[in-house]
Amino acid sequence: MSTPVFSVDPRTGQQVEQVTTSSTPDDVTAVCSAAAAAAGALEALGTGGRAALLRAMAGELESDRETIVAVADRETALGPTRLSGELARTCFQLRLFADVLDEGSYLEATIDHADPDAVPIPRPDLRRMLVPVGPAAVFGASNFPLAFSVAGGDTSAALAAGCPVVVKAHSSHPGTARAVHGALRRAVDGTGAPAGTIGILYGHQAGAALVVDPHIRAVGFTGSLGGGRALFDLAAGRPDPIPFYGELGSLNPLFVTPAAAAERAEAIGQGFVGSYTLGHGQFCTKPGLALIPGGDEGKALRDAMVEATGGVAESWMLNGSIRVAYVEGVRRLLGLDGVELIAGAGASGRDGFASAPALVGVAAGALLDGQTPLLEECFGPMAVVAEYRDAGELIEVAGRLEGSLTATVHAAGGETELPARLLEILRRRVGRIVWNGFPTGVAVTWAMQHGGPYPSSTSELHTSVGPASIRRFLRPIAYQSAPEAVLPLALREGNPLAIPRRVDGVLRLP
Amino acid sequence: MSTPVFSVDPRTGQQVEQVTTSSTPDDVTAVCSAAAAAAGALEALGTGGRAALLRAMAGELESDRETIVAVADRETALGPTRLSGELARTCFQLRLFADVLDEGSYLEATIDHADPDAVPIPRPDLRRMLVPVGPAAVFGASNFPLAFSVAGGDTSAALAAGCPVVVKAHSSHPGTARAVHGALRRAVDGTGAPAGTIGILYGHQAGAALVVDPHIRAVGFTGSLGGGRALFDLAAGRPDPIPFYGELGSLNPLFVTPAAAAERAEAIGQGFVGSYTLGHGQFCTKPGLALIPGGDEGKALRDAMVEATGGVAESWMLNGSIRVAYVEGVRRLLGLDGVELIAGAGASGRDGFASAPALVGVAAGALLDGQTPLLEECFGPMAVVAEYRDAGELIEVAGRLEGSLTATVHAAGGETELPARLLEILRRRVGRIVWNGFPTGVAVTWAMQHGGPYPSSTSELHTSVGPASIRRFLRPIAYQSAPEAVLPLALREGNPLAIPRRVDGVLRLP
Repeated sequence: MSTPVFSVDPRTGQQVEQVTTSSTPDDVTAVCSAAAAAAGALEALGTGGRAALLRAMAGELESDRETIVAVADRETALGPTRLSGELARTCFQLRLFADVLDEGSYLEATIDHADPDAVPIPRPDLRRMLVPVGPAAVFGASNFPLAFSVAGGDTSAALAAGCPVVVKAHSSHPGTARAVHGALRRAVDGTGAPAGTIGILYGHQAGAALVVDPHIRAVGFTGSLGGGRALFDLAAGRPDPIPFYGELGSLNPLFVTPAAAAERAEAIGQGFVGSYTLGHGQFCTKPGLALIPGGDEGKALRDAMVEATGGVAESWMLNGSIRVAYVEGVRRLLGLDGVELIAGAGASGRDGFASAPALVGVAAGALLDGQTPLLEECFGPMAVVAEYRDAGELIEVAGRLEGSLTATVHAAGGETELPARLLEILRRRVGRIVWNGFPTGVAVTWAMQHGGPYPSSTSELHTSVGPASIRRFLRPIAYQSAPEAVLPLALREGNPLAIPRRVDGVLRLP
Repeated sequence: MSTPVFSVDPRTGQQVEQVTTSSTPDDVTAVCSAAAAAAGALEALGTGGRAALLRAMAGELESDRETIVAVADRETALGPTRLSGELARTCFQLRLFADVLDEGSYLEATIDHADPDAVPIPRPDLRRMLVPVGPAAVFGASNFPLAFSVAGGDTSAALAAGCPVVVKAHSSHPGTARAVHGALRRAVDGTGAPAGTIGILYGHQAGAALVVDPHIRAVGFTGSLGGGRALFDLAAGRPDPIPFYGELGSLNPLFVTPAAAAERAEAIGQGFVGSYTLGHGQFCTKPGLALIPGGDEGKALRDAMVEATGGVAESWMLNGSIRVAYVEGVRRLLGLDGVELIAGAGASGRDGFASAPALVGVAAGALLDGQTPLLEECFGPMAVVAEYRDAGELIEVAGRLEGSLTATVHAAGGETELPARLLEILRRRVGRIVWNGFPTGVAVTWAMQHGGPYPSSTSELHTSVGPASIRRFLRPIAYQSAPEAVLPLALREGNPLAIPRRVDGVLRLP
């Protein structure tokens, strides 16, 4: 059954227009079938053809910049500056993957020539490379209407890999999704890519149906722990289980040593507040917990955090559910023994989905009381500041943390012993260690890692940001004793694609 | 509750001795805790230390060769020639992974220097590499008591990665498991590796408990579809889901074009029978289905298969359950309409777990009747020979196949059109394409791919044979703006490990 899909303005909380209707089960089947039908032709475009497609997509998005930024701002209240930057990032990602295709090492092309003298037994000619897994489902993220939605990182990686994509538009920004999808479709048509290259679906039920559609071979998801785990369970429970790359909840703890607090209390305090309130606290890398020295050692730092939080304006959250969860989440923490509001307010009296920052204080010992909500992500502009008694307590808290995307350590110049002990614990629990910095701001580079142990990711083996994220949508295939004419270009003897390859065990550059 | 674990002789079906008792839940907890306690020290050995450990393991196994081969033969009836070869392969695998550690590209070390002029935004220094996921569970395989059990491929890959291993010994060869584990333990002690580097558990219930133990971070499994899927479901259903690398069932279809059948009927027929009866049909790459031309075009080929099967001796299966499943499986197929036994017998009147080869004939049209057991793996020395009417029917059958480890195409010299159509379909369904050869015999090389779409593997993104299989036990971590002293050796500026790295986007050899 199809229901209306409305575009809502977070600044008023009101429906602005009906964008479309929710996708029916028949729609899901049709769009996924079209994606499956496109798979062969998309792969056959080759690395050069898909690079051209990705660059054309970036160009079309830039052509529509004004329209897209305007509708995204009306649907998310993130503001035109942030959204223009996010559009630039989105286009950068598409073009970076085009470069990845040109470079070609992502194919992991490997050739072992036949060797009748091999030990322990003679071996045939074997050639291995990565090929697309098939159609991928991508769930738009509430907090990145451009860079992690219809044309975002997951989509770029999957298309680059050669996988047609079916996007489940996020309910917070259906108008943005429609506008972006329109631009991508123009690029598809303009470059002669198959029509089913990029499909789109709307509505909650369509999302669940998408994950279990037999044509879908992998899923990219960014969202809540509850919703993400439910979809993960669907993917794992299929007759043929498929990988579900979910980025769920992340606490992103930040640790300040006593020496660091003594050295630069104000800079750390201001930086921390800037980070946890950036984008109104709606980043997956928001630092939700700061461990600072208690008593006099931490006073200047705590004061800086309180003062900086006081200077942060109220703003709008992405949708009504997020606002309610945020306000309730802050209220729940403040109901715990020993927890106090030390700056900000949480709730807001303003219109729409407005909320206020909240800085919550507690003694670090409270984090050691078994399962506590103080160690769970609360999405929005809030953070817990926990004061530790001594290094032993700090280390003990570090050992209690679940998986996170990031952990941050602030140390003083030349300080080694305590940071080293912290890193030894933290590096087992996170995907990215930030040193004397702040975790928000995820650079799209070859060395970025965005993904960590559960619950921050459902598959800690991968990243969802940067060129390495393409690996999620590829699987290996080997050819044994196949004649040249049968082999894909990447595996032919003369290296016609001029890509890095491993030949007889030795890595060779073109 | 602990129960006796017996060693059974397949040649008689009789218990020979009690090896140990089944592991209790407390045993599971203790062994997994020891593995977790060993993780830091095993990683700290570094690539050089772990390479030395793997080479020492190979040496200890060779020292015990006679004992190990003798007990393995008594427990599996695979014969000393095969088992000596398998021991050589096992040692080769361990040493190959030592070489992989020395070479170092498996670390995927990547450095992006800080760039204040980067677009779309300035970027910090970022450095990424792969690190061990933590303790791994490995399930011994019935059909590879050495090369895919206690010291097998999964164990070698996980230890190389830096993951302590807890092995669930296969119930078919507990004495072999104990002997191999003893050799590995001597290597651990002799090289100063931590005591929990390699643990062992016995019994079905311990296996299930192992998969859900909170310390275990990944699982390697080779076995049946039913048992494997049950364990996969346990791994996916954990509060913190972990990857389950299962190699379950594989049909490994083989296609013979009319031109190939005309060119070399006898060679293909003999080769096929040699392959499907190798190791008494107990290989995961056994070709379980041959598509051959019907009528006169295929007669010589069919005759060659029948004649060659008639020359294959009865032998013993690995255990009583496998024998029963095999005999029942053959009987079930022969009960289907249009299916006939064209050579061999299936059941055997001999002692112990003996069985006979069975070649089963059918018209290819029968494979198109929805879900049919003719397209499912039947473990043991049997194969289905399906005669196709024309190329159209051959292509249609190819399109009905589930995922397999391999698919084989036999074409005539210079033939291109029909093989190309077959490959276009088959390459979407398998991990390895064999051209004019046979799928058994899995070379351990860089370019090998052993793993394919479900149900042949639960994770088609990976291989379980060869150097690339190490990737299953590694996860990425990035360091942002970290000083040299904090960085792992692999990421330090001067490349002290002298490994291939990607620096500022460019792959560089040491």
